[in-house]
Amino acid sequence: MAKDVEVAEPGEFSAKDYHDPPPAPLIDAEELTQWSFYRALIAEFIATLLFLYVTVLTVIGYKSQTDPNKPVVDECGGVGILGIAWAFGGMIFILVYCTAGISGGHINPAVTLGLFLGRKVSLIRAIMYMVAQCLGAICGCGLVKAFQKSYYNRYGGGANELASGYNKGTGLGAEIIGTFVLVYTVFSATDPKRNARDSHVPVLAPLPIGFAVFMVHLATIPITGTGINPARSLGAAVIYNQEKAWDDQWIFWVGPFIGAAIAAFYHQYILRAGAIKALGSFRSSS
Amino acid sequence: MAKDVEVAEPGEFSAKDYHDPPPAPLIDAEELTQWSFYRALIAEFIATLLFLYVTVLTVIGYKSQTDPNKPVVDECGGVGILGIAWAFGGMIFILVYCTAGISGGHINPAVTLGLFLGRKVSLIRAIMYMVAQCLGAICGCGLVKAFQKSYYNRYGGGANELASGYNKGTGLGAEIIGTFVLVYTVFSATDPKRNARDSHVPVLAPLPIGFAVFMVHLATIPITGTGINPARSLGAAVIYNQEKAWDDQWIFWVGPFIGAAIAAFYHQYILRAGAIKALGSFRSSS
Amino acid sequence: MAKDVEVAEPGEFSAKDYHDPPPAPLIDAEELTQWSFYRALIAEFIATLLFLYVTVLTVIGYKSQTDPNKPVVDECGGVGILGIAWAFGGMIFILVYCTAGISGGHINPAVTLGLFLGRKVSLIRAIMYMVAQCLGAICGCGLVKAFQKSYYNRYGGGANELASGYNKGTGLGAEIIGTFVLVYTVFSATDPKRNARDSHVPVLAPLPIGFAVFMVHLATIPITGTGINPARSLGAAVIYNQEKAWDDQWIFWVGPFIGAAIAAFYHQYILRAGAIKALGSFRSSS
Amino acid sequence: MAKDVEVAEPGEFSAKDYHDPPPAPLIDAEELTQWSFYRALIAEFIATLLFLYVTVLTVIGYKSQTDPNKPVVDECGGVGILGIAWAFGGMIFILVYCTAGISGGHINPAVTLGLFLGRKVSLIRAIMYMVAQCLGAICGCGLVKAFQKSYYNRYGGGANELASGYNKGTGLGAEIIGTFVLVYTVFSATDPKRNARDSHVPVLAPLPIGFAVFMVHLATIPITGTGINPARSLGAAVIYNQEKAWDDQWIFWVGPFIGAAIAAFYHQYILRAGAIKALGSFRSSS
Repeated sequence: MAKDVEVAEPGEFSAKDYHDPPPAPLIDAEELTQWSFYRALIAEFIATLLFLYVTVLTVIGYKSQTDPNKPVVDECGGVGILGIAWAFGGMIFILVYCTAGISGGHINPAVTLGLFLGRKVSLIRAIMYMVAQCLGAICGCGLVKAFQKSYYNRYGGGANELASGYNKGTGLGAEIIGTFVLVYTVFSATDPKRNARDSHVPVLAPLPIGFAVFMVHLATIPITGTGINPARSLGAAVIYNQEKAWDDQWIFWVGPFIGAAIAAFYHQYILRAGAIKALGSFRSSS
Repeated sequence: MAKDVEVAEPGEFSAKDYHDPPPAPLIDAEELTQWSFYRALIAEFIATLLFLYVTVLTVIGYKSQTDPNKPVVDECGGVGILGIAWAFGGMIFILVYCTAGISGGHINPAVTLGLFLGRKVSLIRAIMYMVAQCLGAICGCGLVKAFQKSYYNRYGGGANELASGYNKGTGLGAEIIGTFVLVYTVFSATDPKRNARDSHVPVLAPLPIGFAVFMVHLATIPITGTGINPARSLGAAVIYNQEKAWDDQWIFWVGPFIGAAIAAFYHQYILRAGAIKALGSFRSSS
Repeated sequence: MAKDVEVAEPGEFSAKDYHDPPPAPLIDAEELTQWSFYRALIAEFIATLLFLYVTVLTVIGYKSQTDPNKPVVDECGGVGILGIAWAFGGMIFILVYCTAGISGGHINPAVTLGLFLGRKVSLIRAIMYMVAQCLGAICGCGLVKAFQKSYYNRYGGGANELASGYNKGTGLGAEIIGTFVLVYTVFSATDPKRNARDSHVPVLAPLPIGFAVFMVHLATIPITGTGINPARSLGAAVIYNQEKAWDDQWIFWVGPFIGAAIAAFYHQYILRAGAIKALGSFRSSS
Repeated sequence: MAKDVEVAEPGEFSAKDYHDPPPAPLIDAEELTQWSFYRALIAEFIATLLFLYVTVLTVIGYKSQTDPNKPVVDECGGVGILGIAWAFGGMIFILVYCTAGISGGHINPAVTLGLFLGRKVSLIRAIMYMVAQCLGAICGCGLVKAFQKSYYNRYGGGANELASGYNKGTGLGAEIIGTFVLVYTVFSATDPKRNARDSHVPVLAPLPIGFAVFMVHLATIPITGTGINPARSLGAAVIYNQEKAWDDQWIFWVGPFIGAAIAAFYHQYILRAGAIKALGSFRSSS
């Protein structure tokens, strides 16, 4: 670990090792003419659909098995909160792995916003991704409801709501920090400097990204049910469609977007700008 | 993540980086003369045997420890549904890892069908693999029954059955989408474009494939017990041999085969065809 | 996955890619003069000590928290059988990772026997490794007993014993197949053909090896407590020193050694011999 | 595995493959003039803050859900000790992954001490890292308390304390060995010899390091709550600020520092010195 410090320091050699890709243009008309753009939208739609389908089904299955009103209570029968956290983290791992080469593997409007602010994707791509993600999330939740009509509404539909005993500020703070953890991991794992020698295939990146989602769910499921993904919160709210889920909905958009923006700022201006300043300080000291 | 978008887009450079292998012939007489073909059949047989042995033993052990009719109930003593899901996913991880270089690591007739439809294996190889997998699954379940005569039948023999409260359409849908998740991951993880630079040793591929199996089990164990592998469902049904397991058996063949076919179509015609169309759109815009 | 099939088949190209290392001599006098040999013994001793220390401490901690005779029973307070299985598998993962470059990372007399039968290590090295492993295991269990005098004996000392309701044949069979899964994974993960391009650093190999240990524990903890490692079983028996643990001790030596021998045979004569035969069949068909 | 033995043995070829970096100077005035040094401090501060925030929130959430004094007890509702162990291990995995290229990814004064003793970082860097880590840990715990005022003090604030029934010697021993496991893994995973061919991007290293933390938590949560990180123990004690936490505080500084020192000694003088001695023995035998 300490070795990396040496590598990261002078900046003069690493400048030869890699070059930052130029910032993405705000509006890139040409990408609208390419099939790969629409293919990426399809991939984001399908991935978000599968994400919500598997995770909400896991949540409903867990609650149906631990319901104290059922004749035979099987207290430990479900997968537990640990299993739910694995479902969210594990799905992000495999879906980022599968879609990384097609769409960049966002599957989350907050991640898309963060990468847009870091100038990794164009504005038009960012907006279209978010639309595809939200539609996919709605369809995924719709599938779960279609499969489990009786259970779906009884067990809360996997919707994000503030737990009783927590005020809105706490919920917002939990979403901000949770999304910061996720988007910070995304930026670190896909940093072009890190990937200089393995530029095409950063194969391990999806694993820490999935683990970041897993960790945040372990910590904040008791507070907000853990959103950190506005598409996931919107999809569940649209299909569940109860007042409480809509009342708290803004928390699950404002929180993740603020967290993603802070992570983008932290990575671009504190961590990466360092390379430029280091170069400056190096030159001035020669 | 966003970086991959750039890489995936133009198609013109990547065309130099790799070339798709030609589609496998439907019938390849020569492979029947090679020892490696029979070795692959042995490897598939042994791997499916070990898969069923470890996973069904875990299921039986879990149920025997949480049986409310036992004098001392140890409600949380077993590994839980989470542990069962790990057993299925983890075994697929290590068995795909071990057999990837020998047989391609299918261990599942639905995966074999998907790869046949994607023209990755010949028809004769696909059929022989499925036979080897089914025989292996039967032997694996037979071993468990031989080890645990008294428990085996009492606790359901690890057989896939539709849970009460779900209709057949839901069960079929759950199997279709679950298998889609698995086979989509298989295609993405073994995509020749992705593996262009690491063509011989896509060492990380077994991990997301194993996780896909883990995730689907978390979500659908409460509905069907999770098949997504016709050999696994057949092996358990043959050894358990109760009416209910046979009545629902068709769900665990039709569902996985439809899911695998959709995944093959999605990968070959939506995601990969994109490369060709992108090339076309690029040329026309130059 | 299917792609690997092509790669594995002809054998003629891969013959250029790598060459099998020559079999290790039975007795290699020169290695006795090298510090690296004694360093490897120390590493095996320390690794097995840490393995038993962490895993047996986890077992005792789990049992002390779920003891129904305690005034306040915390039924779900412990880490569960799932946590115990993780402790065994996870420790093997990190210890194989840490010692791979020093001693080869055996940490298990059955693995050492398998690799000796596969002619990967000399006879003298195999015997000395086994001695170091057994001493390390005894010291590791001794540490746990020193730390937890009152709990250690009350909760079985982590010793392997046949559970009531299972006959000796079942226990032996479970140990044989469990060790086969482990040693088969070891051979596959360290296959020189697979590692041809990454020959010095097969960094991912420890992960499937650790998972194999994890999986086997999930399946067979209810039957034998899961040995698959004679040093682990001996160390616990020596420190626990109760009649039942000694009576069943032979199962945890004979079973793992048979399983390792079958795995070595399967890998060397069925899977690897294939390369030679494939070469033969290829030549005859040209 | 056995193959690595061959590689590790002679030492003469590997001497060409890599060269050990020179030991870090005790005081390196120049690094104080570089932005990268201050950036590393910021990264250590933020990472330790996030580490404590997520893990202590998980601990409090678990305890609040399993409190037997609550009207509705949900005994298995929390994530369990297994989930807590995952939270600690998983966060270390992702944070080491994210900060490895910026600060070396210590996030723990014991790791920093170990790497200083191994002459991987300068004295000034080591001291400043420790200060940043302790400040980050205090802020992280402060955030949790701000979010969960009522629960925080009631459920122990995630502070490390010796469990009743264990004497101070046992607690100290558990911390020493636990930290030894962690720092030994850190040295092995970042060994320059191992990383010779992948020197810039030892991408897999964070995974075994995270698993080491996970394993040690499984084993010693029932004894000390598991410190093995003085910053984590200090941060929780400062914010919780109860007598018992302060009385035992010295255990969580002395233990980890002794364990880290032993690990540094073991790696540098037993395992790595071997390379030099092996070279000597090789030359004398030629």
